[in-house]
Amino acid sequence: MKTKEFRQLISKGEFAKPTAGYCTGFVQANMLVIPKKYADSFEEFGKLNHKAIPILEVIRDSYYTKILADNANLLKELPSYNIFEDGKYVRSVKNIEEYYSKDLVFFLVGCSFTFETSLINSGILLRHVEEKKNVAMYDTNIKLNKVGIFEGNMVVSMRPIKKDRVSEACVITSHFPNMHGGPIQVGYPEMIGIEDITKPDYGDSIEIKEDEIPVFWPCGVTPENVLKNVKLPFAITHSPGHMFISDRKDSEYYV
Amino acid sequence: MKTKEFRQLISKGEFAKPTAGYCTGFVQANMLVIPKKYADSFEEFGKLNHKAIPILEVIRDSYYTKILADNANLLKELPSYNIFEDGKYVRSVKNIEEYYSKDLVFFLVGCSFTFETSLINSGILLRHVEEKKNVAMYDTNIKLNKVGIFEGNMVVSMRPIKKDRVSEACVITSHFPNMHGGPIQVGYPEMIGIEDITKPDYGDSIEIKEDEIPVFWPCGVTPENVLKNVKLPFAITHSPGHMFISDRKDSEYYV
Repeated sequence: MKTKEFRQLISKGEFAKPTAGYCTGFVQANMLVIPKKYADSFEEFGKLNHKAIPILEVIRDSYYTKILADNANLLKELPSYNIFEDGKYVRSVKNIEEYYSKDLVFFLVGCSFTFETSLINSGILLRHVEEKKNVAMYDTNIKLNKVGIFEGNMVVSMRPIKKDRVSEACVITSHFPNMHGGPIQVGYPEMIGIEDITKPDYGDSIEIKEDEIPVFWPCGVTPENVLKNVKLPFAITHSPGHMFISDRKDSEYYV
Repeated sequence: MKTKEFRQLISKGEFAKPTAGYCTGFVQANMLVIPKKYADSFEEFGKLNHKAIPILEVIRDSYYTKILADNANLLKELPSYNIFEDGKYVRSVKNIEEYYSKDLVFFLVGCSFTFETSLINSGILLRHVEEKKNVAMYDTNIKLNKVGIFEGNMVVSMRPIKKDRVSEACVITSHFPNMHGGPIQVGYPEMIGIEDITKPDYGDSIEIKEDEIPVFWPCGVTPENVLKNVKLPFAITHSPGHMFISDRKDSEYYV
């Protein structure tokens, strides 16, 4: 199905599931919505922490996309939204029209789905995809560069890679600098403060086989985690896995 | 000094040292010389084991280069040669004119010096270069693809890389597929049959610091090692570190 048609289905409330595997070949993005008074700081924060928070589009005084899609309505064209108050999750909704005010700024942020497609197309199998699980994600001791009230540590995602494909996995993902790019760590979780690889802080535990190496990429959960930590009075995000499906092809972000 | 002038100095016997650090920016190559009856098999062996044996030029019925340099004389324009009989090293010489016969075929093979320059230029420090040591090299359990009498295991070189630069090191070196390309292993020596990282089989032992990861690349010692194993009646190689300095720029082999 075409991306625009798919988003219309979503906006009618006829699709409210995770978007992985839909509209393959098109960029999916994380979304964050915060009050205007924090937006400049957050935009700068993204720039200074680009590997973890690659901002693809910022929308002020409107809720329609210009770059990622032609006039997609961000109030209803995502399958599910999470509402946060004072840094705490309060509820999930299928439509955020009632929450909109001109005071809100929308950020669309790159997502690793894009490079995952590229890895799989190169014959590098991803266990969480094969087993239809969520990727394993971990808090780390990697400090982000602070801007204003925004600070915190990087969250990483882990994918076990066959021992002889690690270098290729680095190369392939490095071609997508706006989708988190190459790994931040290869092989040694303890070096970035992960104590127990079998117990991810987010997502599912993923088996690492004997001939595989755990490889860690900066993760799109990082900004959401920061938003919670800094306890913004109000914020909206996409619900995990329920991404914004754009009109941009993965290949447009291949560098 | 220009590469041609430098080779002329060598041919007059006025330079007989290792070539690392000379004519920076120009490709240096390994050389192997074997009898014609084995040459086709060896050329095919190189093709099927390209990461370890990237053949850059083959010269038959002559000893002058065409691709890597304009008419360099391979009998005397390398600083030192090793002579092998029945797979055994017998002596080093500065000139192989007396050993030449039309029965010999010359192979020039890519060398990791090229990608090392590129790593250093990107701010990735190489301890063996800084400490003016030889790189640490190890026999592995990685089987080469057999062709005719030619078979054996891959030899790898190890460079300790800072934990947060590993992915970049993979990317940079992968741009030089004819100079061994990206790593064959990242982080886990035991996965490729290396039991004691502190005891290399060739070269010098190189310290691995706490925030570094050992990264392994296919190594140009592989073909020499195979030649010894298969006990050819006669063979000549460059002496380790005493490479052929070509007229080709490193950047010409950047893909």
